[in-house]
Amino acid sequence: MLFQVEMTVKLPPDMPSEQAAEIKASEKAYAQELQRAGKWRHLWRVAGNYANVSIFDVEDNAELQELISHLPLFPFMEIRVKPLCRHPSSIREDDS
Amino acid sequence: MLFQVEMTVKLPPDMPSEQAAEIKASEKAYAQELQRAGKWRHLWRVAGNYANVSIFDVEDNAELQELISHLPLFPFMEIRVKPLCRHPSSIREDDS
Amino acid sequence: MLFQVEMTVKLPPDMPSEQAAEIKASEKAYAQELQRAGKWRHLWRVAGNYANVSIFDVEDNAELQELISHLPLFPFMEIRVKPLCRHPSSIREDDS
Amino acid sequence: MLFQVEMTVKLPPDMPSEQAAEIKASEKAYAQELQRAGKWRHLWRVAGNYANVSIFDVEDNAELQELISHLPLFPFMEIRVKPLCRHPSSIREDDS
Amino acid sequence: MLFQVEMTVKLPPDMPSEQAAEIKASEKAYAQELQRAGKWRHLWRVAGNYANVSIFDVEDNAELQELISHLPLFPFMEIRVKPLCRHPSSIREDDS
Amino acid sequence: MLFQVEMTVKLPPDMPSEQAAEIKASEKAYAQELQRAGKWRHLWRVAGNYANVSIFDVEDNAELQELISHLPLFPFMEIRVKPLCRHPSSIREDDS
Amino acid sequence: MLFQVEMTVKLPPDMPSEQAAEIKASEKAYAQELQRAGKWRHLWRVAGNYANVSIFDVEDNAELQELISHLPLFPFMEIRVKPLCRHPSSIREDDS
Amino acid sequence: MLFQVEMTVKLPPDMPSEQAAEIKASEKAYAQELQRAGKWRHLWRVAGNYANVSIFDVEDNAELQELISHLPLFPFMEIRVKPLCRHPSSIREDDS
Amino acid sequence: MLFQVEMTVKLPPDMPSEQAAEIKASEKAYAQELQRAGKWRHLWRVAGNYANVSIFDVEDNAELQELISHLPLFPFMEIRVKPLCRHPSSIREDDS
Amino acid sequence: MLFQVEMTVKLPPDMPSEQAAEIKASEKAYAQELQRAGKWRHLWRVAGNYANVSIFDVEDNAELQELISHLPLFPFMEIRVKPLCRHPSSIREDDS
Repeated sequence: MLFQVEMTVKLPPDMPSEQAAEIKASEKAYAQELQRAGKWRHLWRVAGNYANVSIFDVEDNAELQELISHLPLFPFMEIRVKPLCRHPSSIREDDS
Repeated sequence: MLFQVEMTVKLPPDMPSEQAAEIKASEKAYAQELQRAGKWRHLWRVAGNYANVSIFDVEDNAELQELISHLPLFPFMEIRVKPLCRHPSSIREDDS
Repeated sequence: MLFQVEMTVKLPPDMPSEQAAEIKASEKAYAQELQRAGKWRHLWRVAGNYANVSIFDVEDNAELQELISHLPLFPFMEIRVKPLCRHPSSIREDDS
Repeated sequence: MLFQVEMTVKLPPDMPSEQAAEIKASEKAYAQELQRAGKWRHLWRVAGNYANVSIFDVEDNAELQELISHLPLFPFMEIRVKPLCRHPSSIREDDS
Repeated sequence: MLFQVEMTVKLPPDMPSEQAAEIKASEKAYAQELQRAGKWRHLWRVAGNYANVSIFDVEDNAELQELISHLPLFPFMEIRVKPLCRHPSSIREDDS
Repeated sequence: MLFQVEMTVKLPPDMPSEQAAEIKASEKAYAQELQRAGKWRHLWRVAGNYANVSIFDVEDNAELQELISHLPLFPFMEIRVKPLCRHPSSIREDDS
Repeated sequence: MLFQVEMTVKLPPDMPSEQAAEIKASEKAYAQELQRAGKWRHLWRVAGNYANVSIFDVEDNAELQELISHLPLFPFMEIRVKPLCRHPSSIREDDS
Repeated sequence: MLFQVEMTVKLPPDMPSEQAAEIKASEKAYAQELQRAGKWRHLWRVAGNYANVSIFDVEDNAELQELISHLPLFPFMEIRVKPLCRHPSSIREDDS
Repeated sequence: MLFQVEMTVKLPPDMPSEQAAEIKASEKAYAQELQRAGKWRHLWRVAGNYANVSIFDVEDNAELQELISHLPLFPFMEIRVKPLCRHPSSIREDDS
Repeated sequence: MLFQVEMTVKLPPDMPSEQAAEIKASEKAYAQELQRAGKWRHLWRVAGNYANVSIFDVEDNAELQELISHLPLFPFMEIRVKPLCRHPSSIREDDS
């Protein structure tokens, strides 16, 4: 089941740079782990912003919550979620 | 080059149903043609709304404008565009 | 799987009253059918507005789209959807 | 009398984690006490956000204010309240 | 139990003036009836706008919905509702 | 002359609790003094929020500014002001 | 007593041009009458928009409502009102 | 050439009161200097807010930027600018 | 003197296509005339929207109003204006 | 390929002035380097705000992201991006 997730990162300006680097590194590792597991299906940077557009493929709402709430950057992001489903005009089999 | 395009359809309530059906049919044909051409890479319905989330893959901004402005539903949609690029944490080769 | 759905009805002011009455009657019949089927779990009026707050219980995003897009009032409503899941502090077994 | 209450938690990023843990623990205890008392009728997590959707069942506006203002997280939440009442299409007896 | 109700009137520009006059006359009669019944406690015009600020005194949310939804101007108004209760700093006995 | 004034309090999360208590105490004293003087005609709590709805009765705009700007919580509030006047449908003599 | 009034004109696109011309002509006559009477103290066009910024000088809120609600364009305008008073840094005697 | 400038002051709550007093004093001196020079033509307090409505009379956009960016409170204000010009219904010669 | 002008076209859905074509043709002629006169310095399409971003180069606010208010599409556009001036980091001589 | 980029600077009020000066100096050097390279085609100050309107000319979305994310002020700016393309009414050859 697919969800569009838009994340905008807002780090506190006084966060020490080592701490920021550490959070970003574990965020990256976690994001890649979820991608390899097939849960985080697409991940794009929004050009010109510290933000991404993502497509998650999860069992249900609970798994979506589980995955997102464990993002190391979760406390520092504005997150918008939209449930997706197959579009009647889509010709792509795996986009449902 | 990828763009996220979000479209929300707002048909005038007094549009005759035959006219609406005709526009939707040509919209569907056009959308499938662009998908087959590889230009409209993803097309999802937003569950619960007359809206979609799409990913376009175009040569440049001009082609994006060319494709979207010829949508039969173009005069009846609110459209939000975000330029995308490869995310440094992405592991998917074809998502750039 | 639960979703909060907020619907605000905006009928065109020039819709003939018979047509409006007919749409509302079929909306009511459909809403009650979905409630009896256990799909539309809660349905409340927002006091002072032509709007409701609803909780849907569906198999997946696709079923949510299927059910909402067939509402007779669907073309005349603004709809906001939020995916829900069990809250860690909830004590109610059937609220997951 | 029912109210929809939507709460979004915004903890200050520099709050010590022990303090945050303590506030969350007392929030949980208080939320469960209100649920057992029948005052906090439903409590759902909004998937992907540090937020909840709740249904309160109170005597009057004053009790709603009394209960919400004593939430340990109250100073750190954005709260939206909507008064609810029975929907004419509802078939559920206890949703009034 | 008190509620602040803010109403902004938006009549369709093509409504015939006799129809508008008729609706306004019955709105006025109804508003005065509710005031005499003690239900519509205060009614002020917002200077410079076709809008009012009102205080309703009702038994519960259901009565609020009952009273507001029968306003002749109801289909032509944007309405915002806020539940009120006694302020701890208030010295006025009848403002609870 | 009447004004609707809506105040939402946003205390800095790191304000020492003694300081907050002191400000609130002088706010309360000042609010009650203005009520006794007939300047602050109504004061209600918005249920579920750290906010109030107030009706001020002042000589002119300058007095409104004078009274509000001396509120001890003034630096910590979002304030919205609407000028009010007698509504043609009002039956209450003292609401002009 | 001064008020800033911002007016944005939104004429229905299907209003006959003679009717529009007539309304605008009486609006102009009325605006100039109020200016000569000293009630409409300043009137500026917002460059690039069908909108104006105005300063009214009235006895009280009721007179403001009286004057604005009789504008021939009143049903076709969005209007924002702000009560003004003397600024402590102002050196202009007649700006109070 | 005239511009409407609306300024809302948002001082950081932890700014020492001496520093705030100093900034406000130099702001006042600077504002009065610009008024005497005929550049800051009108300056009004918005009643009930720490905000003002101003009319600037400058040579061009560059001078507007020059004057506003040197306001001592500039880093602590939200500023909205609208270019103004003579209104065709204005009867006041010096309002162009 | 430069202004950024952003225009979004919203034609009424029931405008006859000949009328729309006629308005667009005269809009194009007028836009090209202003460009040749050096008044409309830049004109770009916003990709994916019926909107443009423009840079006007005018004598003053009055000329900006004169030029924009004569656009054939003026009654059908939302327009946002921002006054521009030379940026201290700009190296381009003609961008002042 | 052109993009309109609007940047609004929001420096933390407690940033030491030396640090702010250093960031601004490197921002200026970087901005001028990009202008000389033909990447940052236009750069204007928005009069009355700590903001700019810019036109970037880049190879693709990825380069836009590369350039903007390396701005020294990037962590302290709100940034809005719009993809541009040639307008059919434009007469300027190099504005495509």
